[in-house]
Amino acid sequence: MPRILPMPAMQWNAWGSAEAATELSPGIRGLLSAALGIEGDPTPGVASEAVAIPDSRLDDAALGELAAIVGPQAVSRERDDRLLRAGGRSTPDLLRRRMSHQMVPDAVIAPADDDEVAAVLRWAESAGVAVVPLGGGTGVVGGTDPQAGPHHAVLSLDLGRFDALIHLDEISGIATFGAGVGGPRAEELLGAHGLSLGHFPQSFEFATIGGFAATRSSGQASAGYGRFDDMVVGLTVVTPRGILRLGDVARSAAGPDLRQLMLGSEGVLGVITSVSVRVHRAPTTSIGAAWRFPDFATGAAALRALAQRGAGLGPTVLRLSDEMETGVNLASPGAIGEATGGGCLAVTRFDGDEAACLARAELTAATLAAAGGQSLGAGPADAWEHGRFRAPYLRDALLAVGAGCETLETATTWSALMDLRTAVTDALLTALQESGSRALVLCHISHTYPTGASLYFTVVYALGDDPVTQWAHAKAAACEAIVAQHATISHHHAIGMDHRPWLHAEIGAVGVQILRTLKATLDPAAVLNPGKLIP
Amino acid sequence: MPRILPMPAMQWNAWGSAEAATELSPGIRGLLSAALGIEGDPTPGVASEAVAIPDSRLDDAALGELAAIVGPQAVSRERDDRLLRAGGRSTPDLLRRRMSHQMVPDAVIAPADDDEVAAVLRWAESAGVAVVPLGGGTGVVGGTDPQAGPHHAVLSLDLGRFDALIHLDEISGIATFGAGVGGPRAEELLGAHGLSLGHFPQSFEFATIGGFAATRSSGQASAGYGRFDDMVVGLTVVTPRGILRLGDVARSAAGPDLRQLMLGSEGVLGVITSVSVRVHRAPTTSIGAAWRFPDFATGAAALRALAQRGAGLGPTVLRLSDEMETGVNLASPGAIGEATGGGCLAVTRFDGDEAACLARAELTAATLAAAGGQSLGAGPADAWEHGRFRAPYLRDALLAVGAGCETLETATTWSALMDLRTAVTDALLTALQESGSRALVLCHISHTYPTGASLYFTVVYALGDDPVTQWAHAKAAACEAIVAQHATISHHHAIGMDHRPWLHAEIGAVGVQILRTLKATLDPAAVLNPGKLIP
Repeated sequence: MPRILPMPAMQWNAWGSAEAATELSPGIRGLLSAALGIEGDPTPGVASEAVAIPDSRLDDAALGELAAIVGPQAVSRERDDRLLRAGGRSTPDLLRRRMSHQMVPDAVIAPADDDEVAAVLRWAESAGVAVVPLGGGTGVVGGTDPQAGPHHAVLSLDLGRFDALIHLDEISGIATFGAGVGGPRAEELLGAHGLSLGHFPQSFEFATIGGFAATRSSGQASAGYGRFDDMVVGLTVVTPRGILRLGDVARSAAGPDLRQLMLGSEGVLGVITSVSVRVHRAPTTSIGAAWRFPDFATGAAALRALAQRGAGLGPTVLRLSDEMETGVNLASPGAIGEATGGGCLAVTRFDGDEAACLARAELTAATLAAAGGQSLGAGPADAWEHGRFRAPYLRDALLAVGAGCETLETATTWSALMDLRTAVTDALLTALQESGSRALVLCHISHTYPTGASLYFTVVYALGDDPVTQWAHAKAAACEAIVAQHATISHHHAIGMDHRPWLHAEIGAVGVQILRTLKATLDPAAVLNPGKLIP
Repeated sequence: MPRILPMPAMQWNAWGSAEAATELSPGIRGLLSAALGIEGDPTPGVASEAVAIPDSRLDDAALGELAAIVGPQAVSRERDDRLLRAGGRSTPDLLRRRMSHQMVPDAVIAPADDDEVAAVLRWAESAGVAVVPLGGGTGVVGGTDPQAGPHHAVLSLDLGRFDALIHLDEISGIATFGAGVGGPRAEELLGAHGLSLGHFPQSFEFATIGGFAATRSSGQASAGYGRFDDMVVGLTVVTPRGILRLGDVARSAAGPDLRQLMLGSEGVLGVITSVSVRVHRAPTTSIGAAWRFPDFATGAAALRALAQRGAGLGPTVLRLSDEMETGVNLASPGAIGEATGGGCLAVTRFDGDEAACLARAELTAATLAAAGGQSLGAGPADAWEHGRFRAPYLRDALLAVGAGCETLETATTWSALMDLRTAVTDALLTALQESGSRALVLCHISHTYPTGASLYFTVVYALGDDPVTQWAHAKAAACEAIVAQHATISHHHAIGMDHRPWLHAEIGAVGVQILRTLKATLDPAAVLNPGKLIP
């Protein structure tokens, strides 16, 4: 009998595919030894066969009812199916996956269309079972943890069968994708028509269109093509109280923009099943250009000048590493540990048609040079491009030798950016020092707006004896620093479980009440993704 | 005792100031005669002294309670104060203002800060009185009609005392304005710092920052600076259930974007009291360039090519008139009725720094020429610029001679745009023909996006014996056509009362339920702006 349940693309306990795993270069080993005192050899993770998982709390009768909705091959209680959907890929997730006991959903279901999703939600309400919508499982804030909440079991709702380019309007440049379409597959489907979406987050190779929408993802080409929430024209959301279809007009003043309620809703208000996005002609020209700035503040001021000169005149990709990130060559993983020229590296890239790219590159070069930048040519920009999806693999190799590696991100206004960086860096270093670990805190800007920018921190440190608690302490310190600086608790990773304690500080009591009201209206039995997003 | 109640800038029964009123040129008179059979002389409107208004339903005790909140000079039951706040400035509004009986609020109150607004709302809840927040009174969809709804009286809450530039962050380019700051005043306050907001809707001279936010306004420079909802970074909303403060970070993935719930909320969920907007350096260069296209479809395709080439590379102002609008010179009111060169006129303008303007103008010229445009130089673009805020005055002069003149707008995807124009035009012509009137239907595109564009219709017709009913019939026909074409019921005029019957078609039953839930949560006594927005 054919198997219909989708096969997740990623390993259950590590990023990506095993074939693409990496080893630590001598340069990195040297850096770990010198900076953090880490010398050990890699220790392998626990084998999936050796892991203990709880028995499923869904009995044969329940499975039969679910099978009646989606067909017997699209629902499973098999050990491997459940283990593969244990949650996301944050560092705490991966640290927990190195343990002998795993929390997993009680079953996995893969509906094929909106009606089946609606039927699964009705079943869940009547059966008292939680439902966790799952795309690529690449989240890093606990947003897909298999929490049952107040219910007696939890079902992983895999969107892998929503895998089609449903509609393409080439004139308007609008593509409607099933929520389960992965990043590379979306580009492939569009590429056949000479089009591109241009959304390349770090998770691109494994994340899905629906996940991008549910978390307000932002990609490496955001300077040119915007955040994912900027790209969304319309979406379909199956809620326990009906199907919401929004969009299909360019822009509107017909009341509040309800799309913006569903973007970032993280599966707690409904299941996003399709997303209409704006697409563009695939670029015919790509120009890379790297720059060096004497320090991060000077580089940030240059990026600000670019962003405030006018969106669209600047680069497609824009990234500025701070002194520490530049010093360890993080923007070029293959060269980590090698000597650099100092200062702060900025990478720019211009994608589009030739005339526009040339004009944008010229305007950008003038702005960056006037702001104190020194041109480094295309080399470092091409090196970054080459290695840009490798960092999560590197993290797995680091964890194996006892080096913790995690990222976190925030955003604020330009005027508050440098103080925010200092506050978060200090909080992380202090908290990890309290746990007895030395740490490196690297930072870059990779998303800019006229009014402000994101800060993306990479933290590398010696894992302690209780590494989950160790990182929770450091993360909490960083979150407290972010909130104290009135910055956002997340620029593009979303809220999930990990940021939930800090959302109140950002949206206030009335904002929280709005979310709770929406939840109570659309999901009155609270079956959808318990414990996520809403405080 | 000093008077604190703000003085509205506009006449009670016409657009703008009496001094700026216009007369019909011989060219227009000739056009009205030839095309519509309208020959009459102007008849004056009813004098304010001659108008009958209902007695206020708020007694001395109620006034005393309100005076205790805001001070005795900031609350009024005076006839003129109430008449000046009778509602918006749609053509039906102005037709009704020519009648002998007027609907007006029972009193006017002008709180000075958030706490006073909150106290007024608490009073309204306990007293069972409706509250209609009022900015400039320039709305055209009945959004500020003094409706009491289920309550026994209605209070006009004038935001005119929220008149300050509260905070300016020049580094981040963020200005926080009181909601009552008018368009020109905002530019004046920013201009003192070398900055500009760049929001220039038709209502610019009289509308307010708070009104722009509450209605999702879009201005003539939207191609360069975006819609008003794109400009908003943060806002403060006083609801009956607490104060919501949002924003102050560039962008966020911290759940649904609650700002987007309050933008377009039209005073039904809370009173917007301050708005933080992104601002930019005042342009140092302005280049106008006009183009002629052989027909509207060719011109629209050229605009599409511009919009899809990349935001920011194109003009700041972009407007394409259809054949009819070009033929009557509507883009240059001083020349209406004069001969034109035929085809379709497109106006572009590039504001910014010199290097960027030159690059954008060059890229734009290449795109428009390749798409079949013929350059006309700067002249027609400058003529449009000169007359761009005059149209509403012209409407008053037309109404006085028995010529109805109204505008309506919508938006859709590029692929659906031409069919939408045909459907709406046909619906208007047919409906007005049914009422026995000849009509001219003019159309232009003035807001473009990568995925679609707005259509803005101007209808000129012979007023019938019952002109309010006559237009309601035509407007309903246009709305039905818009809905049948799956376009938006409003691109930038908002919902108010006039579009409310068609909102359900756009957002569906679940969307309506979300709005009702939000209303019930934030304004459980339903005192805020009854009868608006929410079906």
